[in-house]
This record gives sequence, C-alpha cells and structure tokens, in this order.
Amino acid sequence: MAQKVHSAEILCIGTELLMGDIVNTNAAYIAKEMAVLGINLYYQSVVGDNPKRLKESLELAFSRVDTVITTGGLGPTYDDLTKETIAEYFGQTLQLHQPSYDRLCEYFARTGRIMTDNNKKQAYMPEHCTVLENPNGTAPGCCIEQDGKTLIMLPGPPREMKPMFDHWAIPILLKDSDATLVSKNLYFFGIGESALESRLKDLMVNSLNPTVAPYAKTGEVMLRVTAKVQKPEEAEALMEPVLKRINEEAGQYLYGIDVDNLQTAAVRILKRKGLHAAAAESCTGGLVAKRITEVSGASEVFECGITAYSNRIKQQVLHVNELTLQRYGAVSKEIAAEMAEGVRRLSGADIGVSVTGNAGPGASEGKPVGLVYVGISSKNYTNVIPLEIRRTDDDAREYIRYIASSNALYQVIEAAKRA
Amino acid sequence: MAQKVHSAEILCIGTELLMGDIVNTNAAYIAKEMAVLGINLYYQSVVGDNPKRLKESLELAFSRVDTVITTGGLGPTYDDLTKETIAEYFGQTLQLHQPSYDRLCEYFARTGRIMTDNNKKQAYMPEHCTVLENPNGTAPGCCIEQDGKTLIMLPGPPREMKPMFDHWAIPILLKDSDATLVSKNLYFFGIGESALESRLKDLMVNSLNPTVAPYAKTGEVMLRVTAKVQKPEEAEALMEPVLKRINEEAGQYLYGIDVDNLQTAAVRILKRKGLHAAAAESCTGGLVAKRITEVSGASEVFECGITAYSNRIKQQVLHVNELTLQRYGAVSKEIAAEMAEGVRRLSGADIGVSVTGNAGPGASEGKPVGLVYVGISSKNYTNVIPLEIRRTDDDAREYIRYIASSNALYQVIEAAKRA
Repeated sequence: MAQKVHSAEILCIGTELLMGDIVNTNAAYIAKEMAVLGINLYYQSVVGDNPKRLKESLELAFSRVDTVITTGGLGPTYDDLTKETIAEYFGQTLQLHQPSYDRLCEYFARTGRIMTDNNKKQAYMPEHCTVLENPNGTAPGCCIEQDGKTLIMLPGPPREMKPMFDHWAIPILLKDSDATLVSKNLYFFGIGESALESRLKDLMVNSLNPTVAPYAKTGEVMLRVTAKVQKPEEAEALMEPVLKRINEEAGQYLYGIDVDNLQTAAVRILKRKGLHAAAAESCTGGLVAKRITEVSGASEVFECGITAYSNRIKQQVLHVNELTLQRYGAVSKEIAAEMAEGVRRLSGADIGVSVTGNAGPGASEGKPVGLVYVGISSKNYTNVIPLEIRRTDDDAREYIRYIASSNALYQVIEAAKRA
Repeated sequence: MAQKVHSAEILCIGTELLMGDIVNTNAAYIAKEMAVLGINLYYQSVVGDNPKRLKESLELAFSRVDTVITTGGLGPTYDDLTKETIAEYFGQTLQLHQPSYDRLCEYFARTGRIMTDNNKKQAYMPEHCTVLENPNGTAPGCCIEQDGKTLIMLPGPPREMKPMFDHWAIPILLKDSDATLVSKNLYFFGIGESALESRLKDLMVNSLNPTVAPYAKTGEVMLRVTAKVQKPEEAEALMEPVLKRINEEAGQYLYGIDVDNLQTAAVRILKRKGLHAAAAESCTGGLVAKRITEVSGASEVFECGITAYSNRIKQQVLHVNELTLQRYGAVSKEIAAEMAEGVRRLSGADIGVSVTGNAGPGASEGKPVGLVYVGISSKNYTNVIPLEIRRTDDDAREYIRYIASSNALYQVIEAAKRA
C-alpha cells in the first residue's frame, strides 16, 4: 500500500474565478477528497486565463510538490489557453485526439448545435497524455505523467469536474497503492461538532484505517468513516469496531447512514413504513415543505403543507381554536399542538408536524427572537418541543428558520420510527 | 485620482480552508470588490496554518505584487500563527495593543465568558501597524505599510471579514486616489446573461466611469453600475446617461434597483401598494412561500401558502374542480388557473399565485420533466404562463423548482404593478 503521491497542489484556472464572479467550490471539493486519500495538500491557488502567469504558477507548483491538479480553462473560447500552456511546460505539442473529436461531433449532431473551429480545439490534447473522458460536457480532461511529475487537468464546471475527479483522478492518485476507498457517512442531529468530537476524540486522532473525519453542516454533523482496502468487501470488517464505538458514544444522535440529509432520511423512513406526513408552518413559511419535497419521490409520502402566516388562516384552514390563540398567542406550545393536529386531520396524514415561533427581527407578542415551538402529532401522541435558537447577526432570521425546519424534520423521523 | 495600488494578491490562511472543510467565499468577495476598485488582482492563494509555508507565500506574493490582503488565522487557538509570521516578515515584534485588549475584556465581561491567555493573544498586534477594529468578533485586523508594500490582515469568518473589508480596507486601497465608490445594482429577470451582454456590450467594455459589470445568478442577471467620484453626490449625474441607456436596451426586463432579489422586490411592492398575496404550490412544494417569507416583514403582505401535493388536497383546500383534474391532469394551465384563484379566494388576498408542473425525475401523467405552469390571479385578471425548463443533470429537480419559483415571484411583482 505504498503511496506514490507525497504532496499535491490545486491550481484553479479562470479569470471568472480570479475576479470573484464564481466561488471556488472545486478547490474545496478536491481538497476534501485528497484528505480522505491521505495526500498532503500544501497549497491551493487561483490564476486567471493568462498564459504567462499560468506557466509561472505551474513552475512554482512543481518546484514544491509532485502532483498538481488543475481545474478550468478547457472551454472553447479564445481565453482558455490552459492546454497549450501546460503542454508547452512539458515540452509537448497538441494533437487532434480522434475519439474525443468523434464524441464532440456526435454531441453537436445530437443537440442540433453548430460546431465551430473553437469547439474543435477541445479535441486537441497533449501528445503524450491519458485523455480523461467527460460524460457531462464537451471538454475532456487529461493526465500527464512525466519526469516524476503528475498533472491532472480537469474542466471547470463543478458538475463536470466532480464526477471526473471521482472516476478518473482518484484511481490515478491511488495507482501505486492498489487501494480502494470505501466510505460510510453517518449523520447526527442534536449534538454539536465540538461535543461529538470530545466524545470521539481518540477515535478521530488515532484511527488511521478506517479514518474518522467530522464535517459540520448548519445545525448538524456528519462523520465520514473511510476504509482503505485492497478489495471493497474487506471494508465492512475493518469498519465494524469503529462503527460500534461511535454507536456506543453517540448513537442516540445518529439519524441515518448514507442518507444525505434530514429530509432524505424522513422521506425514506416514511416510504419504508408506508406513512404519510403533512406540515403546518408559521415562522418557517414553507421551508419544511420545501425541504421534504426536494427529495425525489416525496409525493408518495407528503400530501400537504400549509403556510399559515396569519391567525385567520390558522383558524380557517387548520381549525386552530380562537380562544387558544387569544389566551396563549400564536407563538405558544398550545398553538403548535393544535396546528400539528389540524394539518394531520385536514390531510388525513399519519404524522402532522408544525412550526410556530419568532424568527425575528424584533420581539413579537412579547416572544423573544429565536423562541420556536415544533409540534408533532400522530395517531398515538401529540408532543411539542420548545426551542431557543440563539443568534443575533444579520443572518439570524435565515438561521433560525433553518434550524427550526431541521428540528421539525427530525421530529418527523422520530415519529415515523415509533409509528 | 491617481491610484497607488497597482497589483494585488489575496492570501487566505487556514487549514480548514486548505483541507476543503470550508468553501473560500472570502476570496470571491474580496476579488469582486477589487475589480470594482479597479485594482489588478493576479493571484489568489490558500495556505494552511503553517508558519513556514505562510512565510514563503508572503515572500512570493510581495515578489510579484505590492498589495497583499490576508484573511484568517487571527483566532485564539495555538495554530493561528498568522500575526507572528507576518510581523516577523516585516521585522516587527508583537506588542499588546491596549484599546484592543480593553475591548476584549469588555466583550468577555458582557458575554459572561472566561478569558484565557489564548484570547489575550488576540490583542497583541505588530508594533508598527494600524489596528482595524472588528465590531463582529474578538480578533482585530491590521494594516502594515512599509517599504512600498501594503498588507491588510483580516479575520477569517465572512461575517466579520466582509464589513471590515468594506469599512477599513476600501479606504486604504483608495487612499491616494481620494475617490469614493457609489454603486447601483440593477436586477433583471427573463433575459440571460449573454443576451443582456450582447445588448449592452459596448457599454460594458467602454464605460470606465461608471463601470458596468454583470453578475449572473441562477435564472437572473444583476448589473452593477459603479461610479468613482470625489463626493457621493456627484454619482447621480455620472450614472444617469448609463442608466438611461440600459433602460432603453433592456428596461422591460429590469425588475428592481438595489432590491437584492425577486422575493424582496415582491414584498416591497406589495407593501408599497398595500396588497396581500397568497401562494398555491404543487411541484415547488413550498419554495415560493419560503422565499417570500424569508424577507423580513413578509407577514404584512403574505398570509397563506398551500403546498397541495396530492389531488385530494388540491380539491379539498383549494377547491380545484374534480372534472378539470380528470380532463386536463394536475399539470395543466387549467389547474394552474384554478389553484391561483382558489388560494386567492381562500385567503382573501389580492393576488394569488400558483405553480404546477413536473420537476422530475421522470415524466408524470405523460407530461415531460420541466413543463411547469405558473398561474396568477388578481381582481382584474387570471393568467397562466407556461414554462419549459430544460435541464437533465443531477441537479435538474432543484433547478426546475427554483426557476419555477422565480417565475412565480416575478408574476407577483408584475401583478402588483398592475393592481
């Protein structure tokens, strides 16, 4: 399992990136993958579509690392001179790569667009390289291995770059190690990153195979457990003791494995159990419904979401009691309960979830910003979870709404488990 | 208006950035602002919390530019060695900066947290620098001007960095020019970036003061017109002919100036006209309501959103006609019209908007993916806009839903204008 790659650098090319018209998500994606591969990444750089500065950046990069991954600059326009400059750096010329040219012609024929000479440029590749096919675009990538240096050139658009990195670059980077990576992503809710880390610190620091790495997302944490193995089927046994240990220490916060996010986990468990859910929202204003319905196949488990911003709609559509509203106000556990029950009855769903609260700015009905009630109603029980979401900056409203919706989704998962 | 700064580089510091745990939005933000300032930005780099590589990066940067802006590495933890390294590069030592120390003590007293020796480190600054106060965090920034080099050091968290860049860095960068920048952001919907560019190409290329720069967002375009003036009150006259020209060429697509986005524009015009809106959604699943209610103050103009995913809810809550559903299917202009009318009647709103369509994956009821109808209903008229949103990749569902919701918001703006 000797690793040939010792150190690497990411070089992102493009004037739009350099000028800040695009945020560099490619660098973050590649960097994260490199960390999993165990490759030392020392620098990331961004340079414009400028041959002189690109060449200087390449020389600099190869003076300090042995592997350089470039993104961008492979498009058909005049200012995309990446391939020419890199070929020149390696003392190579560009030659027409017939299979790429055929694919290009086929692509233009299929989409009924006209192929220009500029487009044809995309099929010219450095003479001694491995061409990396791009299934999602017209610009192929390539890999040059020469004089102990490895250069992997990928296109700029993330939806082209990411699958190419996974499919082509990872095997190249792992080549001399004969290893394969197998990952499991564990999703936690209700525990912060630092609290989870302090429970699992020794595991994260000491576990080398599999590795355990945390990734914080707004209000949640994902742990990625990655095993480096010769054959994929060996991964399970290697991971087992680590997964067991994580389960012991933080299992009560684990809501799913390889589920992507709360909404996907919710839709999956509802589907598996043949249940339907419905949502009644006040301060989240449709965000719970929006998140559930962004999962494809949500229509099988989600019928109805009501955004009842005004008290009138709460009464008229959700049949919330007028006296309850008067006595406790719209931001109260009593109203959260009635909203959850109301939307469940209205829709005939098995599970009704509700959110009412104050997302700010400013106190409302004397209720502080960040006070939110999540109601959950099923055949067996109605419950209300009070939240105090503290945040006071410019993004407070967005944050409070998001965290409130995450709690609502989490309650749907919990209710589905018990149903 | 001579500009002292000729060329600049952004150096972002932090192992979390380098490893891809954080996406580098700071670099994009600063780069964009620099472009407006007319400063030549040649490189962006990312380096970890490693003093040796940071020092090498600094030397490299100042070998090719005269101004370096750093972000990150000013936190209280052990690995944040930025200040030490940069001071050393300039041959300076760190000294306790009393005003920063006082502010730090005050901050910890106010928040009831305990101040550690590590925290105290944040008040040590290079001996010959201008300290840049940080109103949103504990780490001040600083500016060193020495030997014709300018270094501006800012903290890493974007919500601290951005206001500091605007408040401190811009005046430093503009110092020798005595100029002030005044911008107007123009928001367009219904025209693509390249179409807008081709209409305004000469203006974008030839106009130096004010400058005109396009920023594409999903499904929309923003044009920023920026005047460089001695006094802010001079900007209006300078901008006027350019704004007039833009209006002539693309005025019918301009939905607002300095409005941030479609939902903000919608809430503003509804408020100004004293109107209420309501939304009935199928394939967008709450996204229209979510976007409207993310604008603070939306409760004054938005009462109700119904996500009617199932036909039963469409009939029961929105009173869509069963025969219409049977005859035309849920994805039809007839149902879009009935949904918009239904939610308007249900809520008593002035404007009802609806979305029904197929966001995929897969055809449904024989309707292709991307076919969406947006309905709009007001006292005076009901109208339906058919959309064919073409996209077939992994993000198609999200994209189709987003574009559909943008069209719905745009129709609300148009209906409010006419009401």
